[in-house]
Amino acid sequence: MRRATPTIFSILIPMLMTVGSGVSAARASADAAPMLGFSDAAATAQRALERRFDAELKADDQREWMRQMASQPNHLGSAHGKANAEFMLAKFKEWGWDAKIERFDVLYPTAKSHSLELIEPTRFTAALNEPPIEGDSTSFKTEGSLPPYNVYGADGDVTAELVYVNYGMPDDYKELARHGVDVKGKIVITRYGHGWRGLKPKLAHEHGAVGCLIYSDPHEDGYFAGDAYPKGGYRPADGVQRGSVLDMILYPGDPLTPGVGSTPDARRLAMEDAVTILKIPVMPISWADAQPLLAALDGQVVPRSWRGALPLTYHIGPGPAKVHMKIESEWTRKPAYDVIARIRGASNPDEWIVRGNHHDGWVFGAWDPLAGNVAMLAEAKAIGALLKQGWKPARTLVYASWDGEEPGLLGSTEWVEAHAKELKQKAVLYLNSDTNSRGFLGAEGSHSLQHLVNQVAAEVRDPQTGVSVDQRLRAAIQVDAFENPNPESQRVAKLAANGSDLPIGGMGSGSDYSAFLQHVGIASLNIGYGGEDEQGGVYHSVYDSFDHYERFGDPGFVYGVALSQTAGRIVLRAANAEVLPMRFGDFAETVARYADEVHKLADSERERTNALASLLDSGAFKLAADPSKVLLPPAREDNVPYIDFAPLDNALVRLDRSTKAYDGALEKAQAAGLDLSARQRSDLNGLLQGMEQTLLDAKGLPGRPWFKHFIYAPGMTTGYGVKTLPSVRESIEDRNWDLATQGVVRTAAVLDAYSKRIEQATLAFKSK
Amino acid sequence: MRRATPTIFSILIPMLMTVGSGVSAARASADAAPMLGFSDAAATAQRALERRFDAELKADDQREWMRQMASQPNHLGSAHGKANAEFMLAKFKEWGWDAKIERFDVLYPTAKSHSLELIEPTRFTAALNEPPIEGDSTSFKTEGSLPPYNVYGADGDVTAELVYVNYGMPDDYKELARHGVDVKGKIVITRYGHGWRGLKPKLAHEHGAVGCLIYSDPHEDGYFAGDAYPKGGYRPADGVQRGSVLDMILYPGDPLTPGVGSTPDARRLAMEDAVTILKIPVMPISWADAQPLLAALDGQVVPRSWRGALPLTYHIGPGPAKVHMKIESEWTRKPAYDVIARIRGASNPDEWIVRGNHHDGWVFGAWDPLAGNVAMLAEAKAIGALLKQGWKPARTLVYASWDGEEPGLLGSTEWVEAHAKELKQKAVLYLNSDTNSRGFLGAEGSHSLQHLVNQVAAEVRDPQTGVSVDQRLRAAIQVDAFENPNPESQRVAKLAANGSDLPIGGMGSGSDYSAFLQHVGIASLNIGYGGEDEQGGVYHSVYDSFDHYERFGDPGFVYGVALSQTAGRIVLRAANAEVLPMRFGDFAETVARYADEVHKLADSERERTNALASLLDSGAFKLAADPSKVLLPPAREDNVPYIDFAPLDNALVRLDRSTKAYDGALEKAQAAGLDLSARQRSDLNGLLQGMEQTLLDAKGLPGRPWFKHFIYAPGMTTGYGVKTLPSVRESIEDRNWDLATQGVVRTAAVLDAYSKRIEQATLAFKSK
Repeated sequence: MRRATPTIFSILIPMLMTVGSGVSAARASADAAPMLGFSDAAATAQRALERRFDAELKADDQREWMRQMASQPNHLGSAHGKANAEFMLAKFKEWGWDAKIERFDVLYPTAKSHSLELIEPTRFTAALNEPPIEGDSTSFKTEGSLPPYNVYGADGDVTAELVYVNYGMPDDYKELARHGVDVKGKIVITRYGHGWRGLKPKLAHEHGAVGCLIYSDPHEDGYFAGDAYPKGGYRPADGVQRGSVLDMILYPGDPLTPGVGSTPDARRLAMEDAVTILKIPVMPISWADAQPLLAALDGQVVPRSWRGALPLTYHIGPGPAKVHMKIESEWTRKPAYDVIARIRGASNPDEWIVRGNHHDGWVFGAWDPLAGNVAMLAEAKAIGALLKQGWKPARTLVYASWDGEEPGLLGSTEWVEAHAKELKQKAVLYLNSDTNSRGFLGAEGSHSLQHLVNQVAAEVRDPQTGVSVDQRLRAAIQVDAFENPNPESQRVAKLAANGSDLPIGGMGSGSDYSAFLQHVGIASLNIGYGGEDEQGGVYHSVYDSFDHYERFGDPGFVYGVALSQTAGRIVLRAANAEVLPMRFGDFAETVARYADEVHKLADSERERTNALASLLDSGAFKLAADPSKVLLPPAREDNVPYIDFAPLDNALVRLDRSTKAYDGALEKAQAAGLDLSARQRSDLNGLLQGMEQTLLDAKGLPGRPWFKHFIYAPGMTTGYGVKTLPSVRESIEDRNWDLATQGVVRTAAVLDAYSKRIEQATLAFKSK
Repeated sequence: MRRATPTIFSILIPMLMTVGSGVSAARASADAAPMLGFSDAAATAQRALERRFDAELKADDQREWMRQMASQPNHLGSAHGKANAEFMLAKFKEWGWDAKIERFDVLYPTAKSHSLELIEPTRFTAALNEPPIEGDSTSFKTEGSLPPYNVYGADGDVTAELVYVNYGMPDDYKELARHGVDVKGKIVITRYGHGWRGLKPKLAHEHGAVGCLIYSDPHEDGYFAGDAYPKGGYRPADGVQRGSVLDMILYPGDPLTPGVGSTPDARRLAMEDAVTILKIPVMPISWADAQPLLAALDGQVVPRSWRGALPLTYHIGPGPAKVHMKIESEWTRKPAYDVIARIRGASNPDEWIVRGNHHDGWVFGAWDPLAGNVAMLAEAKAIGALLKQGWKPARTLVYASWDGEEPGLLGSTEWVEAHAKELKQKAVLYLNSDTNSRGFLGAEGSHSLQHLVNQVAAEVRDPQTGVSVDQRLRAAIQVDAFENPNPESQRVAKLAANGSDLPIGGMGSGSDYSAFLQHVGIASLNIGYGGEDEQGGVYHSVYDSFDHYERFGDPGFVYGVALSQTAGRIVLRAANAEVLPMRFGDFAETVARYADEVHKLADSERERTNALASLLDSGAFKLAADPSKVLLPPAREDNVPYIDFAPLDNALVRLDRSTKAYDGALEKAQAAGLDLSARQRSDLNGLLQGMEQTLLDAKGLPGRPWFKHFIYAPGMTTGYGVKTLPSVRESIEDRNWDLATQGVVRTAAVLDAYSKRIEQATLAFKSK
């Protein structure tokens, strides 16, 4: 279930999916429960191992590592960023890992100078500065930090009238057109929220704007949401949300080296050929800087849903407010330092379990990313202790702390691109985390891993309540459905109540799993705790500090320990399982639900289009509109044909049958003690390792070949948010019926390939 | 259909119901359409009469009358209020009406002195004053006006900590309890909106508060809603919403004379026995006065839906804000001047068509009530002109301009109580209006009149678009359902599209129809135009002025003319119809829908209660709550038994059958030229005249015997908003299952009486 959090907690874990498992009452004796991929005897040993692992986890370690790593600015290219990488390298080595730093030189523009002025009808110069706040110690020590900016926006010096475009999403431009306003030659001002920031200037440019301002309305994460920092944790008047506007929907990573690692000898694009760099200047500003600009706008009053929490009447413009914005950057390459640590698998060294979190922040990065990074370090330390006790994982462990996630998933993408061939042969699973804080477990990813996550969640204790994190999540899901009943909340609440596995969400983008899952097809997960915090208020600002995190994020670092326990179990089970801990009926069921959604999407679009045509024909919009205002009828839309979904529906029948057969065979084998021959195991695990890769289509998604996964992708018009069955769904949304029909065929093909490989895996159980 | 208007346009026409009729295309030849209660020949003559009527309506008349009547404060007891009554008296006489003033002496407290201070943790003295605004001429001439106050609140001098209680409605107190806060001994501050203002101090008192402040949050009708006056029409920082807090849900009218007219010799209650006078002091304030108080509150941050548009984080309290409020009033009787004008019916003088609007405002009252009042005067003038041309109505017309509506429907209630016996014998219909402005027709009332309203709406031209007001409304309903699809909007849109009659709403309270409909059972309607205005911003303030109305209400007074045309047609058709223009299948269908709602209400309450119990049993609320905050589980509720709805369901079967038979008989007779004998007509019209009275139950609703109508009542916990089948619905909402079961039986009894009378009327068609 998607967690409806009122904060923007999960910007980088964009819509953190809640997850959990098991009938809580039955979990008292979780020790006796079956463990996916393990015989009962192996499960007992594994649980003993996990208890030893837990015993090595110390909240104080995480606190001290965060304090040190967040003590100075640690963005890509910073001195402290490099020091942090070297610090971790030393730690990994000290703990017994085979560790190194892999460096990639990536194009990374940094702000040289920037300015913003209102020049008509009154004058105002924006401060573009985040002042120190009493009680937040690092806000007084910002030397070496970058000013607030949006990386990969264009340089420019533009002067134009202002237009307010709400969140700057596609529907907002449709609404604007109904008000008879366009943005050609204008500078747009848009507020953060409701879609990934990078889409805002991109869409503004597509609509003809020459510049874009993005501000943090107090409605989203300021005083409307809660007490501002330092009284509470929410965004103060001068707080700015930095962030990347790289067009990551086309491809993430170094804009100059799509598809290949940006190694010294890599062939690089000329900058002007790098399509992921935006074409207009864009600037993030605080609400204190935005308020005089918005107050100077006139023209029509904005629609109700466009209004924020500033004490003024929001107007669309254009003008009379006119602004001058100027940005100049240094367009040079900077080094990204990925820390890569390995422990060779004792029996299956060529099956890799990869675990990652990034280490670069925007300024001090305590929440984002260090909260997750220190939890990962704690896992590595505990595993090191197990090693010293003589334990060895069956499979190879690869722990990675990525650099340059913030500007565009640079470190992870370049690494995956550089090692793509080996990863495709060897990587079994990529487990990601990012920010982390007090609250509920969220998880999203490949649905073949859903049962593994559920089993783990039932065995991790929630630090605040003492029940399992699974049980706590089930309670929250049921309460939410009681208080906010709707078909989806009630569907999930029923699962929560009856003890079925809870669904994990599909994965869009916004953190380092993208290249693993969507480019090379490694089964992936993204996990983290949250939902009881006030991160939103300092997200990507100078106030994302140790002091803030310790007050509002995870006092006592107990959820840091919970994340280590959760991720550690996933890693250790994947590393040791006799048969890789995957189950496929969950995937089949989920994809069937997605297919049902795209069926309904086409039908409801057809109905809506017909209803619209009939209202346009009868002149109803004109009659209903207030003649004293401008509200034009919406644009007429072409008819929605019936789409041939048969290939997809047929593929789903096969998928359902083949996955049920596999899950049944595994369950039977497990009940019989997993008495498999070495060849059977090797065949089985080999087939399972590459399973997710069958979901790739070599030519990639329409218009963005880097993205090859045909089940999960970041949305073209959502940015971070996932679009499932994207080649079908987005084509329908885009009203490209031919492309939708092709999407059905291509999606059916990857599902058939998946089914075929599963059928082979099922056969492996039979042929000793 | 209830019109979802973003403004609070319809405070006194509380939820103005949209209404209209006919297939627009078919209405080109509306002249040939059947007219309910008329033979075709009579219909042709009636339409000719209506054209002559229209020709007498002049927008300039309405403008000038409003300018004069709104030139000085005209509240109950004011010199100019009396002058206005005398002005109208003279006009009615001049136009040929038999007119007089009826005076009632009513208890009407006026503010002598009042003050409000914040005394801790900082000091602030509230201005409690609405300063002049450039461009609003009367705001400079307020001599003789009353200060902003809530009439019928108690006097008092209290000092206590403040608690913010959102809208101060029952659910808000439940939410407050979950946060562990109560209001005993505290002063509450609540914002206007979401429920009638009088409920706010009443509920505050019931929960133990010692004082109540009600402020106008800019979210509701200030800068959040639109540009503030004078740039736009919305409430400026210092604007205050005055208004009555008389407990009109028990009984409206003079608190000292429930059930009887407050004539000089009436027996009066002692003031301490008048249960409709509130027990704690209450004060309306502007947001400029409220902001320092709200900013001084601390404690928990309020739930999301409780937040307004002021630039601060809203906290619940209690304290540290402490306030001192003091109110002293003059508790004396003042004279209310009802202007009553008559034209005796030529053939049926003992069948009365009553038409009313009030004339008292809170200060200048341009919008409320003069916009409606001047439209009514225009009707009277036009009818006078027809008289002078030799025309006479078949039935008697009674036009009434009420005094003292604002403090508590005083003038109309006392008049109805004083003339109850005669009204029950003679009144056929009461047609009310109140404020009026640019936009869409709204209508609510007795469903036997739904078809009449629909027929009239199809023949009144919308001044802005040129189509019928019916056609424009149908367009708006369909567009609304397209943009905000939900089962109810789509149900009504279907009717709008297929040319069926549009539903009118049931009537709650908040204007002068209450005594007519709910106390003596006269079939009633309340109509008005609106929805494209900005009244909300000056509602009940000193800025409700001629200048404001002419800019933002109805420039050109063209909707004033449309109201005259609409109300005039209803009056003239009711006055002349051979058979009273009522149809009963619409009523049966509507009541069946209400019954379906109460069935579902009981079922959904049962399900909700069971779900709640199960979540409480499992401890889910505790597990789901953030332990760092206070959020207690909701209170456990008793089980919901199955209620015996059979008597109601059986009564509906009879009602459906009998109304269909009557409507069929009337249709047949009308098609045959309404060739009825004099005795048939007299029998029929006699039965129809008293029809609505069969829906009364002599003992009245539980706990409030003054309200006797068992189909429509103002809600005990909504104030103005209607509760249909109130003895059943409110008992279920109140979880009083025995009372609900009794309500079913009593409601079935009134419906059976209604069916019986309809069956008699149907027989009258047959017995020449």
